[in-house]
Amino acid sequence: MDGMTDSGLLSPVWAGSRVAAVTSDEAWLRAMLDVEAALARAQAELGEIPAGAAERIGEVAATLTVDLTELAREARQSANPVVPLVARLRAAVGEEHAGHVHRGATSQDILDTATALVTRRAVEIVRADLRTVMAGLAELAHEHRHTPMAARTLGRRALPTTFGLRAATWLAGVLDTDGRLARPRLPVQLGGAAGTLAGYGPRALELAELVAAGLGLPAAPVPWQSERSMVAELGSALAGVTGALGKIATDVVLLAQDEVGELAESSLGSSSAMPHKRNPALSVLIRSAALQVASYAQVLAAAQLGELDRAAGAWQAEWQPLRECLRLAGGAAHTAAELVSGLKVFPKRMRANAEGLPGDVGAAAELVDRILAGYRNRSRTGAEFTSS
Amino acid sequence: MDGMTDSGLLSPVWAGSRVAAVTSDEAWLRAMLDVEAALARAQAELGEIPAGAAERIGEVAATLTVDLTELAREARQSANPVVPLVARLRAAVGEEHAGHVHRGATSQDILDTATALVTRRAVEIVRADLRTVMAGLAELAHEHRHTPMAARTLGRRALPTTFGLRAATWLAGVLDTDGRLARPRLPVQLGGAAGTLAGYGPRALELAELVAAGLGLPAAPVPWQSERSMVAELGSALAGVTGALGKIATDVVLLAQDEVGELAESSLGSSSAMPHKRNPALSVLIRSAALQVASYAQVLAAAQLGELDRAAGAWQAEWQPLRECLRLAGGAAHTAAELVSGLKVFPKRMRANAEGLPGDVGAAAELVDRILAGYRNRSRTGAEFTSS
Amino acid sequence: MDGMTDSGLLSPVWAGSRVAAVTSDEAWLRAMLDVEAALARAQAELGEIPAGAAERIGEVAATLTVDLTELAREARQSANPVVPLVARLRAAVGEEHAGHVHRGATSQDILDTATALVTRRAVEIVRADLRTVMAGLAELAHEHRHTPMAARTLGRRALPTTFGLRAATWLAGVLDTDGRLARPRLPVQLGGAAGTLAGYGPRALELAELVAAGLGLPAAPVPWQSERSMVAELGSALAGVTGALGKIATDVVLLAQDEVGELAESSLGSSSAMPHKRNPALSVLIRSAALQVASYAQVLAAAQLGELDRAAGAWQAEWQPLRECLRLAGGAAHTAAELVSGLKVFPKRMRANAEGLPGDVGAAAELVDRILAGYRNRSRTGAEFTSS
Amino acid sequence: MDGMTDSGLLSPVWAGSRVAAVTSDEAWLRAMLDVEAALARAQAELGEIPAGAAERIGEVAATLTVDLTELAREARQSANPVVPLVARLRAAVGEEHAGHVHRGATSQDILDTATALVTRRAVEIVRADLRTVMAGLAELAHEHRHTPMAARTLGRRALPTTFGLRAATWLAGVLDTDGRLARPRLPVQLGGAAGTLAGYGPRALELAELVAAGLGLPAAPVPWQSERSMVAELGSALAGVTGALGKIATDVVLLAQDEVGELAESSLGSSSAMPHKRNPALSVLIRSAALQVASYAQVLAAAQLGELDRAAGAWQAEWQPLRECLRLAGGAAHTAAELVSGLKVFPKRMRANAEGLPGDVGAAAELVDRILAGYRNRSRTGAEFTSS
Repeated sequence: MDGMTDSGLLSPVWAGSRVAAVTSDEAWLRAMLDVEAALARAQAELGEIPAGAAERIGEVAATLTVDLTELAREARQSANPVVPLVARLRAAVGEEHAGHVHRGATSQDILDTATALVTRRAVEIVRADLRTVMAGLAELAHEHRHTPMAARTLGRRALPTTFGLRAATWLAGVLDTDGRLARPRLPVQLGGAAGTLAGYGPRALELAELVAAGLGLPAAPVPWQSERSMVAELGSALAGVTGALGKIATDVVLLAQDEVGELAESSLGSSSAMPHKRNPALSVLIRSAALQVASYAQVLAAAQLGELDRAAGAWQAEWQPLRECLRLAGGAAHTAAELVSGLKVFPKRMRANAEGLPGDVGAAAELVDRILAGYRNRSRTGAEFTSS
Repeated sequence: MDGMTDSGLLSPVWAGSRVAAVTSDEAWLRAMLDVEAALARAQAELGEIPAGAAERIGEVAATLTVDLTELAREARQSANPVVPLVARLRAAVGEEHAGHVHRGATSQDILDTATALVTRRAVEIVRADLRTVMAGLAELAHEHRHTPMAARTLGRRALPTTFGLRAATWLAGVLDTDGRLARPRLPVQLGGAAGTLAGYGPRALELAELVAAGLGLPAAPVPWQSERSMVAELGSALAGVTGALGKIATDVVLLAQDEVGELAESSLGSSSAMPHKRNPALSVLIRSAALQVASYAQVLAAAQLGELDRAAGAWQAEWQPLRECLRLAGGAAHTAAELVSGLKVFPKRMRANAEGLPGDVGAAAELVDRILAGYRNRSRTGAEFTSS
Repeated sequence: MDGMTDSGLLSPVWAGSRVAAVTSDEAWLRAMLDVEAALARAQAELGEIPAGAAERIGEVAATLTVDLTELAREARQSANPVVPLVARLRAAVGEEHAGHVHRGATSQDILDTATALVTRRAVEIVRADLRTVMAGLAELAHEHRHTPMAARTLGRRALPTTFGLRAATWLAGVLDTDGRLARPRLPVQLGGAAGTLAGYGPRALELAELVAAGLGLPAAPVPWQSERSMVAELGSALAGVTGALGKIATDVVLLAQDEVGELAESSLGSSSAMPHKRNPALSVLIRSAALQVASYAQVLAAAQLGELDRAAGAWQAEWQPLRECLRLAGGAAHTAAELVSGLKVFPKRMRANAEGLPGDVGAAAELVDRILAGYRNRSRTGAEFTSS
Repeated sequence: MDGMTDSGLLSPVWAGSRVAAVTSDEAWLRAMLDVEAALARAQAELGEIPAGAAERIGEVAATLTVDLTELAREARQSANPVVPLVARLRAAVGEEHAGHVHRGATSQDILDTATALVTRRAVEIVRADLRTVMAGLAELAHEHRHTPMAARTLGRRALPTTFGLRAATWLAGVLDTDGRLARPRLPVQLGGAAGTLAGYGPRALELAELVAAGLGLPAAPVPWQSERSMVAELGSALAGVTGALGKIATDVVLLAQDEVGELAESSLGSSSAMPHKRNPALSVLIRSAALQVASYAQVLAAAQLGELDRAAGAWQAEWQPLRECLRLAGGAAHTAAELVSGLKVFPKRMRANAEGLPGDVGAAAELVDRILAGYRNRSRTGAEFTSS
């Protein structure tokens, strides 16, 4: 592997997280092999290839080991990694069944469907962490329903508010963006070389449904090989989530300033030069993610303009920024769960800093109740909490 | 006004369009005045200010003329245009009622609610144009359900497809992104200086609902002054729509190349140097929009990180890029309606260019039917076609 | 003009500024007419058109009034405003000389050269304001060479530094980015329809030099109609400048917080809800610009990928974001000059906030001296201060 | 490593390239250790730590092996990887000398200086590949100085040009952007916790120069820990280079279309579904990079706004996008060298496609000569070719 790796050294926000594990090159490789296996199984079910071939392909796909660096290097020749992977899979399957591998498929079918699989797993993890974040915020909002603090606008103290309303507003942002993230579910991609499913035979539409069922993915009404708005939507939903978490982190950094002192992170973020200085390290990590994701999502949005039936560059430009969006959103969610659950609140300091501000906290408590009611309602019905 | 204007000279894609008219500075000004009037009316209804005051404020707001350049210049002092506008409105209302103007409100209440009004009007126009685009695409898809043409991947001819499937895939993209655009509906903003509604009195929540009703806007469960995910979502939805239209334009440019000759725009885009050369001017305009909007939407996404209860820069950075997103999406939709309705299709050339390609068009016709069925179903039920 | 205008209502950072005046639609129109006149003059000088024609064209170009909204609307037909402008110019020049208008030229020649003119004027204004900013920062750095204050890292007090070093570091950023802005100087564009200068006759290269001299622009070694790296570089230089100013504004907002109280803006940024609250309005304006420009510069960078000899969308997508970069950088520089010259420094508070921090201010004073020496040296030699 | 790796599977444009090797996590780790060693050596030279300590630190730093995934995970606690790395280095150095490790330094000193080292190596590689690209383009320009082909504007054939002029224009873009890339040279970072060099002792400025000399990096006049315009400039220069290469790739894809047939890539980009179809795979790879880099550079530009003396998120957000800019620019340059050196030109087809176009090729040959003269002049003097 000599020197080719990214282990998260430059992205501690996701280092060691579950989302990093399910979005690695290895994970993408396994997903591509899973798709080849599912395709063969579905083709066998329709009698288009022998059952033994599908079985053999499935076995080999499940166990094939591949030197990823080498595969990546070979991917240069066709500008995608599926061509060399299929060659290896065919070789490993053996001469008898090699011809049944990747039958009717085009590289994009395999890679897009693998991306759908990877994405589904990653989004599930992100949303699980968001649930933890929301539960923690709901608790804070409830507990501090009446804790007065200064509202600050344009950097200056304005009027009193409550910490409960602040936490509830954070919660509203996470709720909203989690709802957005629940929507775009990448489906199976089965289009064949031209997006017409030609090559998959006369029962191609049935085949597509079988593959989808086999992989637990939504069936696509039509191939999306050249219609990429779903990918763009997914990217922007991930940016939305990370932005909502980044908003929390921004506020924590500001409220944890020495001169303000209203919040602190539980963990003692340490400094290499000043061992006794407590840094809001988790918030910094979350912000480092939030300051990136919107730009990666922009790459995905721009990729909607790809040419004709398979873009010459725009499709290929999606892969890495989509992974970054998933990893960074996942890292931010994971880190926010840690941040929120350990957040230290200093009501006395809040009260002191709010002293002398004119006016009262208005409808702050009612607003908290509204947000909490909305949150509880969604939690109970699970309305937005399953990706159904 | 001397020299301060942007009339669309550098943005012909929206020049002279309806969406340009409803997103001008004048439109924003009128919307801000409408909000002040609606607030006063609602406060009068609750007995918080005299009915006569509300009436007077409404009259003046409806007719007040303001030198926009001067107002903009004065806006520098407070970093927003509401402060000097309120000063003028108070002066015009007269001493007796001046104290009832803008009662309890903060600048952001007025500007955000005005933005919600402007956005609603602009989105309605965009979506009306999208309906025309979709109807035209549906017709093309139906008419050319069996017209063979070459599928082109990575710039090279691959296998046969049909023009019907191409048009239907374009339609699928517009349908999908129009659906996204239907979702984020900016609500009324009524938070007061701290987002607690303090200043609006004991019946503030009721007041917020009255104002919403008066303006025909959704009521916000809670103030969104510091929780901007909706604005980000709106921006990305506008980028999605423009991207789906940009995809069509990209394909038209490529298929209208001399050497391909399968499509042409109806209007004769003229050249200042070569009067007889026909340029795909409408497609170029649409692409000029699509190549910008995703980046402006990125600014909106990044603005989610604004500080505490009113951001010192991030909120103010939203205004112009949001307008650009609206104008460019509107211009692209308007131009796409013109493009699609006049698109010239050359089936003979398509057939000739597809000759010799191996294989058949697979399930192209069924895929077209699926997309058209989905489109008709939505049209009939209006599911996504009203912003309800 | 009914409702088509942008007078800066949503961009108070540049409202009423000199840079806004020289980047308006009107300014671009005048520049395009100037280019047509300069072309005719040069052609007359080479004997390619009658001297009387050039004179007539020059006179008409200098005085022609055009309804910009109408022109913009007509620009849709050719996807650029030059075609309808030339038609008007020809009509106004009269039948005798009409044929000598725009001879050999293509729309892009006129528009790009006009952009070079507009850009030169705008950059001069930006840089003049930057000189004021730098002079003010140099003064602050010198005056507070020994004023201790807390350094703050990751939002927390760290060790002592000096306000002089902070101001000097701000200065270093402006110096550096002003130097970058001095480099990319858009030259005259004279390529003709194909970028070969065909159409301009046998002395085309000579002609190009004459036009450049006539307009006071650099001559381009070769046409840049399809090689847009200079535009991208200009955009990123403007982003650099705005970023360096945005950095200052960010720090001012933080140091002007009530709880910190080490700096204040001279002007009393007012609030519509809280008349007595002092907002750092100038810093907010500067930040509103800085949070946008990098994204507009990204559009310009992406436009380098335009197709073949004139891009179908990417060129046209440059116009508005380049103007925004110019206007926002100009507005930020203009506002920063105001901010810096009026900045109130509270050394007592700085000292108090730094109390108890371990260690000394290290080499802060020497570092200040270095930066000031570099600044003075450049000022004296004018090294980077003329766009030579 | 289980599942944490990025080996380029999703970025074949740089997979297996030299630039990938010098920008890996391992490379960054080694660079950080090199910086610690150089610091110790310089401190020993000044007599601030014992010579034996520096020797021991140097030995250990050169050979220390670290589990990168574990280190990355531990980096979460301080939001940067230097803190846990220093702990390991100290432990490995042994109790006697541990106290001399990282003396006076802050994490940012080490990481920024390591970034400067990594960047220098990567930029050298990029520029070496650019030299190959330029040599190949110069040859093509010379050889095809008189080869006529159609100029194409807005996707349509316009007038004749030559392939020589096209190649020369590509060359001009690479020359220009390579010149930009030669400028921003990240210097050593030595600021200490507060950017004042406090902690490095009374001879800190001398120390900084020794460290710079030891590492072969430019000395920084002042610390750049909070003044990040150089990083932004570097990012935009990398975007410029990649854009200039992306422009070439865009044109190749268009001219390699079946219907145009004027160019072809030498390598046979293969398709998993259509083995006999030749894809412009190298151009697609280059475009995949170019469609990303401008957005990553935008993240770096936005990071200029970081807060006070060390940003809480913006600094940390630079690391990964800077690596991506380096890797993608490097991959694009590497791939472009392969593309250009193997490009197949079909002059007959060019001639045929240009037939019937009105006019001649104007000054195309002179323009080619100008560009080649500029190129040769720079090559000879090496003006821009050394990073001096």
